[in-house]
Amino acid sequence: MTVSPLAPASFPALPEIDGVRFATASAGVKYKGRTDVMLAELCDNATVAGVFTRSSTRSANVLDCQAKNGKASEGRAAILVNSGNSNAFTGSRGVEAVTALSAGAAAALGIDPNRVFTSSTGVIGEPLPYDRITAKLDELVGQLSPTGIEEAAKAIMTTDTFPKGHSVEIEVDGKPVKIAGIAKGSGMIAPDMATMLVYIFTDALIGHDQLQSILSRLTDRTFNCITVDSDTSTSDTLLIGATGRSGVNVEGNAEFEAALEAVMLDLAHQVVRDGEGATKFVEVQVTGAANNADAHRVALAIANSPLVKTAIAGEDANWGRVVMAVGKSGAEADRDRLTIRFGDITVAENGWRAPDYSEDEASAYMKNQELTLAVDLGLADGTSTVWTCDLTHGYISINADYRS
Amino acid sequence: MTVSPLAPASFPALPEIDGVRFATASAGVKYKGRTDVMLAELCDNATVAGVFTRSSTRSANVLDCQAKNGKASEGRAAILVNSGNSNAFTGSRGVEAVTALSAGAAAALGIDPNRVFTSSTGVIGEPLPYDRITAKLDELVGQLSPTGIEEAAKAIMTTDTFPKGHSVEIEVDGKPVKIAGIAKGSGMIAPDMATMLVYIFTDALIGHDQLQSILSRLTDRTFNCITVDSDTSTSDTLLIGATGRSGVNVEGNAEFEAALEAVMLDLAHQVVRDGEGATKFVEVQVTGAANNADAHRVALAIANSPLVKTAIAGEDANWGRVVMAVGKSGAEADRDRLTIRFGDITVAENGWRAPDYSEDEASAYMKNQELTLAVDLGLADGTSTVWTCDLTHGYISINADYRS
Repeated sequence: MTVSPLAPASFPALPEIDGVRFATASAGVKYKGRTDVMLAELCDNATVAGVFTRSSTRSANVLDCQAKNGKASEGRAAILVNSGNSNAFTGSRGVEAVTALSAGAAAALGIDPNRVFTSSTGVIGEPLPYDRITAKLDELVGQLSPTGIEEAAKAIMTTDTFPKGHSVEIEVDGKPVKIAGIAKGSGMIAPDMATMLVYIFTDALIGHDQLQSILSRLTDRTFNCITVDSDTSTSDTLLIGATGRSGVNVEGNAEFEAALEAVMLDLAHQVVRDGEGATKFVEVQVTGAANNADAHRVALAIANSPLVKTAIAGEDANWGRVVMAVGKSGAEADRDRLTIRFGDITVAENGWRAPDYSEDEASAYMKNQELTLAVDLGLADGTSTVWTCDLTHGYISINADYRS
Repeated sequence: MTVSPLAPASFPALPEIDGVRFATASAGVKYKGRTDVMLAELCDNATVAGVFTRSSTRSANVLDCQAKNGKASEGRAAILVNSGNSNAFTGSRGVEAVTALSAGAAAALGIDPNRVFTSSTGVIGEPLPYDRITAKLDELVGQLSPTGIEEAAKAIMTTDTFPKGHSVEIEVDGKPVKIAGIAKGSGMIAPDMATMLVYIFTDALIGHDQLQSILSRLTDRTFNCITVDSDTSTSDTLLIGATGRSGVNVEGNAEFEAALEAVMLDLAHQVVRDGEGATKFVEVQVTGAANNADAHRVALAIANSPLVKTAIAGEDANWGRVVMAVGKSGAEADRDRLTIRFGDITVAENGWRAPDYSEDEASAYMKNQELTLAVDLGLADGTSTVWTCDLTHGYISINADYRS
């Protein structure tokens, strides 16, 4: 598969996180000739927190992770992920699969099954051949290594065209604290082959409730602000493990929160950059809304509009479609107070095309690979920023015959 | 342009409606070598009612029609429509254009400007050269004829691939009552080139408030149940004119309401059949929801899902994507009570693939040009039916370079 034109030049050098080890294996769940299972082990008493899809048809794995989140906090913990099959909408067999995977990993590692978190990503509705994974558990445990995070990022890919990783290192009271994360997905928001999974690790010391609260807050500003195609996955999972091995307590530390946000935002952007068929990376900035919720509604209406996204694909400065998306959003808007900018170019203001608007200038701007669409509603102080990609023939090709 | 494969074989023979006359002209608003203006004249005291887009950025024409709806009811009335330019987001010049068109038509016909309803459809944000239209008004008035409805249907087309018309005739107390309508659009729900406009005429006798009430109720079951791409237009307008010339009072007559619904539903279906790039006509039936609103939410989530629509384009029986769409809809749903059918084939039930599911059988069904996707939520009695089309390379081609 061709790598997305929006991909970073290479996978970054991620630091080892003291207390975390990785292993990968080729279990043959669906794919041949590549790894499709990753196991991450977290040291004694590591804190694990998570956020999950709100889909009412979410997978057995997601339901199991939600039940375990915050329940047990002692001993080692593990994250076991397979690609190629999402184990979603598989009825009682889905529950059976998750139970077997958790019990198997717990036994192989000698830990509490309530400390084992599983994710599955791939096609919906097919029974997961979990025995192929449990058969590999002893091999996985034997290979655990602190350096395996890049291989882990590769094992969880489905139709991703590149593995995704990012890290930030900060100093707190002269001591280093590290955060490193990996992700897979071609949309927040796109099931079957593009379900988003994110795993972040840190050696910071922090309790579950604090970590959960930070994670939920930051998710609203990062992963909840990206969209590829408006379709919400049945498996979206973000887990964070904090080993405490740095010895640095980060509770209430703003610098830690900023560093974690930087990791989450970078990974979120990488998911958009690997959006199915994407050729343009687009930041949608909405300001001047009646409130932040309205701003977010407008930003998502623009970012999800097939007509806006196809115009971007065609490098067409069709700002009339942005006007349309504002109008359909349901947010409070006054046509005659709207200002629309493409990059630094004001294309429309006061309910009308800008007086010095130049079609040539706007068209030239649209040829950029990275674009900013800014809308000011001129009402109050509500703001929101959302990231998306264009809608191209590539998206149709990838999705019109994935399963068959 | 190639005619949609889903188009009817030919334009139907529509009856003349006593009291209605039509004329068309080539004003050169944007298109060359075709008609782009239609004028419909309604006889003395005809009742006119309408429903309109709820977009907060709706066009000056829509705002003007809304202000006039139900205001004046005496003397003749007129509907003046142009294609090629939507006159939307054109600021004070948009208002100026509507005022000039209304005043011009009123003067040419010798009627009250409050009885002149205008629509414009086409690109957003370009000033409408309304003088090209007003220059044609005397010619239009001179050509008014009771037989011109098919030509009217053609003049209002933009990227439509076929003109759309339908009629129903009923007898009330032994007297005939006729209803005939025309429409344009490739989506309820798709601006720029696919804005939906509908004009229906009848010789029934009925007052404004009754007619408005029936029209609003039926719109919820017809035009509000179709979607091509989830994008809401700035110009959607449906006007109905009742001349009363049949002498048959239809207030409270269920048969009239059923006949009007049949005309509206057929025209709504034709709009979907002309959906941009469409190759499949899809009926989405949702039953067993907690209530009708929830059922409608689920039906639209399925009908608007890019992943469901691309699967249909690829003739892939990917019912996992239907599960996903149910899950993301926000409606109450219990995974383990879901039943999903493609045509007569039960593909999933009780939260799991149906025991006798045959991939071959389901794949064979997907090759049909007309498909039914049925979802039963197994909760209560809420139902909704929605119509849509698939999402193809054709949609991308049409929309990635329309304006430039």
